[in-house]
Amino acid sequence: MLKKNVNKIKVMALGGLGEIGKNMTVIEYRDEIIVIDAGLSFPEDEMLGVDIVIPDITYLVKNRDKIKGIFITHGHEDHIGALPYVLKKINVPIYGSKLSIGLIQVKLKEHKMNNVRLNVVDPRQVIKLDNMEVEFIRNNHSIPDACSIAVHTDEGIIYHTGDFKIDLTPISGDVMDMHRICELSEKGVILMLADSTNAERPGSTMSEKTVGVGLDDLFRKAENSRIIVATFASNIHRLQQIMNTAGHFNRKVAISGRSMVNVVSVAKELGYLEIPDDMLIDLNDIGKYQDHELVLITTGSQGEPMSALARMASSDHKKVEIKSGDLVIISAHPIPGNEKSISKVINFLFEKGAEVVYDDADIHVSGHACQEELKLMHRLVRPKFFMPAHGEYRMLKKHSEIAQELGMNEENIFVMQTGDVLELDKNSARVSGRIPTGNILVDGLGVGDVGNIVLRDRKHLSEDGLMIVVVTISKEEGRVLAGPDIISRGFVYVRESEDLMDGAKAIIKQVLKECEDKNIKEWAYLKNNIKENLKEYLYQKTKRNPMILPIIMEV
Amino acid sequence: MLKKNVNKIKVMALGGLGEIGKNMTVIEYRDEIIVIDAGLSFPEDEMLGVDIVIPDITYLVKNRDKIKGIFITHGHEDHIGALPYVLKKINVPIYGSKLSIGLIQVKLKEHKMNNVRLNVVDPRQVIKLDNMEVEFIRNNHSIPDACSIAVHTDEGIIYHTGDFKIDLTPISGDVMDMHRICELSEKGVILMLADSTNAERPGSTMSEKTVGVGLDDLFRKAENSRIIVATFASNIHRLQQIMNTAGHFNRKVAISGRSMVNVVSVAKELGYLEIPDDMLIDLNDIGKYQDHELVLITTGSQGEPMSALARMASSDHKKVEIKSGDLVIISAHPIPGNEKSISKVINFLFEKGAEVVYDDADIHVSGHACQEELKLMHRLVRPKFFMPAHGEYRMLKKHSEIAQELGMNEENIFVMQTGDVLELDKNSARVSGRIPTGNILVDGLGVGDVGNIVLRDRKHLSEDGLMIVVVTISKEEGRVLAGPDIISRGFVYVRESEDLMDGAKAIIKQVLKECEDKNIKEWAYLKNNIKENLKEYLYQKTKRNPMILPIIMEV
Repeated sequence: MLKKNVNKIKVMALGGLGEIGKNMTVIEYRDEIIVIDAGLSFPEDEMLGVDIVIPDITYLVKNRDKIKGIFITHGHEDHIGALPYVLKKINVPIYGSKLSIGLIQVKLKEHKMNNVRLNVVDPRQVIKLDNMEVEFIRNNHSIPDACSIAVHTDEGIIYHTGDFKIDLTPISGDVMDMHRICELSEKGVILMLADSTNAERPGSTMSEKTVGVGLDDLFRKAENSRIIVATFASNIHRLQQIMNTAGHFNRKVAISGRSMVNVVSVAKELGYLEIPDDMLIDLNDIGKYQDHELVLITTGSQGEPMSALARMASSDHKKVEIKSGDLVIISAHPIPGNEKSISKVINFLFEKGAEVVYDDADIHVSGHACQEELKLMHRLVRPKFFMPAHGEYRMLKKHSEIAQELGMNEENIFVMQTGDVLELDKNSARVSGRIPTGNILVDGLGVGDVGNIVLRDRKHLSEDGLMIVVVTISKEEGRVLAGPDIISRGFVYVRESEDLMDGAKAIIKQVLKECEDKNIKEWAYLKNNIKENLKEYLYQKTKRNPMILPIIMEV
Repeated sequence: MLKKNVNKIKVMALGGLGEIGKNMTVIEYRDEIIVIDAGLSFPEDEMLGVDIVIPDITYLVKNRDKIKGIFITHGHEDHIGALPYVLKKINVPIYGSKLSIGLIQVKLKEHKMNNVRLNVVDPRQVIKLDNMEVEFIRNNHSIPDACSIAVHTDEGIIYHTGDFKIDLTPISGDVMDMHRICELSEKGVILMLADSTNAERPGSTMSEKTVGVGLDDLFRKAENSRIIVATFASNIHRLQQIMNTAGHFNRKVAISGRSMVNVVSVAKELGYLEIPDDMLIDLNDIGKYQDHELVLITTGSQGEPMSALARMASSDHKKVEIKSGDLVIISAHPIPGNEKSISKVINFLFEKGAEVVYDDADIHVSGHACQEELKLMHRLVRPKFFMPAHGEYRMLKKHSEIAQELGMNEENIFVMQTGDVLELDKNSARVSGRIPTGNILVDGLGVGDVGNIVLRDRKHLSEDGLMIVVVTISKEEGRVLAGPDIISRGFVYVRESEDLMDGAKAIIKQVLKECEDKNIKEWAYLKNNIKENLKEYLYQKTKRNPMILPIIMEV
């Protein structure tokens, strides 16, 4: 009985199932735990005031002695963004490719963390633990140095694709290591976890290289214009292509936006960006060049209100003013939820007379595998069991259907939720239970101190504002000594609502008088009475429900 | 000099230029004003708590004696939604097609308004004023009975397309009245205002009829499933097609969602929906039928959280529970900004085991003309001057480019902003000034009482919450009698932040003591001191900036 359990491998996600982002997967075998990625996600609309969201790692904290390390597939925020928070609770070694570690270093520096054990790993390199061996396998994605991870155990191999696409003509020349994948498949993969982000899209994702052709075309047509290209800072292949095209047309390149400057610096230093010596110029020096000699690369491809591009569009950028004739290329696809912000920025750019190229398949390709690539991955890996990973529920579901189309038995596929525990060995697999999981909200320095009650209050305040009622009452006589004073915020223009405020005051005085007459000194009762009466009055007058906060000061 | 001005026609928009929605156009000639449409728009993300947005009609109120009527192109909210608010300020006659007036009646009834002069107008019917004649011309759109409007003057004709597409096989059989348009063109159109919503889309919008084919296909494949179709309530052609398809497959139809029930009732009564006698059943009776005998038509195609479909998806609907095997067809395209809400609803539906068809060109077509249709309209109308209408800036801009491609001189095209006044006669046109315009925010019963300050406070409160500090001080001695008491909402979990609250209290006591020692009794000074010190302390501890409200009660 004991023997049997010892050979079970547990696989569970702390994030990334049924959602986009917050990717974090835990594999536990005997007394060892490895973690794959530690990502963040961005707050949902209802998470008012929240900066970022990270996974609940209660399970890891409880089992911290077993954890051998966090293995990073690639350097995107949704895979490394939670690291500073996680490492403050469990300071375990980090393993990742050179660029991933470089980007993690930037992040840790911002958090003033310098005692983290960072380990650079090469593709095909294997980290040997007591019961598992962790191997990094090169794949392709919208950032260089992305890897899949193979975990070797006595029971067989667990293969986690990480985020991937299959790019047969990648910018770096490094094609996904299909040969090693085939070897692993021959040895026997018991479980595959695979990226489901594009499982709903038929066909194949185009090669990053096609974007270079699109950029060349646009640059050629805009020979007299200043060109501004917005893209994701982390898409270094894209940056390389923009610089290559700038080179073809003898243009200098200036960089705008903090994250873009950071990434270009790290990528250049580590050899992931090849930039001719005299190509990069300081943003302060763009005035020294003519329009046709310039390319600006900027952040803001998602319309983020504080980004460099948004500031340029609203004449709020210190160094760059958009002018008639500029060509702005938005080399990115809107992440769901950002459509309106991007649209706003584009309208501003148009109003300034810029030409804007956006939402164009020639200047952006996805970093994730579409259906035909997923099928190829399944055919190469040939796993016994399959867990769709990284995606909203309907994407996981679709990925399951694709696997079935390829002949896999539905019973061998596990469409799981974050927190579900998959227990497996070489012969069998089943969901055996759950571990605690959830969203930890980060707001400023606070990690987890914003929860449902705080969010509910923020929502209430955001919709109808508040009304504060203060009364000072003598403890002994129960007599009103001062007030009632009314203060309101976010409710109505007070100056134009004097009648309303007078009415509110009358209501409160009435309640106070009744309590005084009846000699009631239970302040909770009094407060509740004020609240109820005022609420009814305000709703009747305005059809709004501000938060009402009665405060009694006892003297 | 006077003579000359007398013959100038003024055309201005109170909404709909540089934005989607809030459509309202004013035409003024000699001492007469006519208004075309009075629409609402939906609040932007930053308009927290706001229900709807309507145009500022200061100009109309000021000139109310000149106004001869509001002429309605069709019954969509972005063309009729502001009517109840506008009519409360200027009770002028309304003219519109039968269905438009029917839908306006429903709206006025909700607002308990019964003294409005409503006039049903037939296509080609002409309303004669002293200096203008207003003619309704049938067009096609995603609601029946949509019209363009031609305004005849001594100087020539002004042609406002309204929202339109060119559907050569419309469901009702009524094709756009191209023959009349050609006659008008022969007479001489001096200005055209035309729908720019789809000016960025090449090609032509498909006929509404193609959706019927798509629906038939889906119904055929889902012969054993219960079918739920979500669409826009106002798209009566779509409702007709869903019912036709239901008929082909011998299914009963039940309606869910208040606006859907209202529209079906009005449209049926006025003869715009042909429904076999025994087809419609009550939503309460769906239990009496088997799955393959049922179609539910529901609101919620935009993922609106309170809509019938969203409630079904989250098991919150009183009468309908989604079950495995249901087919849900979302027959609509996401309006920008709604992508995430729709995606959420779809995921919930998938989790309940429903099959969901969405974002599929076979089951939805737009109601607006794409580039080829716009070109045809331009060729038919052949206006001397052109003002792109209905659209964000970039759409208006694109529409201008299309007109230029057709040979129009850029100087004859006016890409205007809401509030710009175009002054024209048969020979010339120019933007001659501006009238006041803007967004009036409606929140509950309040129209315009939520402005920038209230919104700024709501935003502040929504992001970081608030902290209230109350102190009772004796007027004579300047001594603290009670407090400081601290109340916070939407900031931190108070129970888990005792240290923070204790620290805050210490800061306040310190400030109070200093003031007491110095015998300072200027409460404004004291309040400001509390605010500044507390703000700094809280930011340093939490990196958050809650709204701080110090309240001094004087006894």
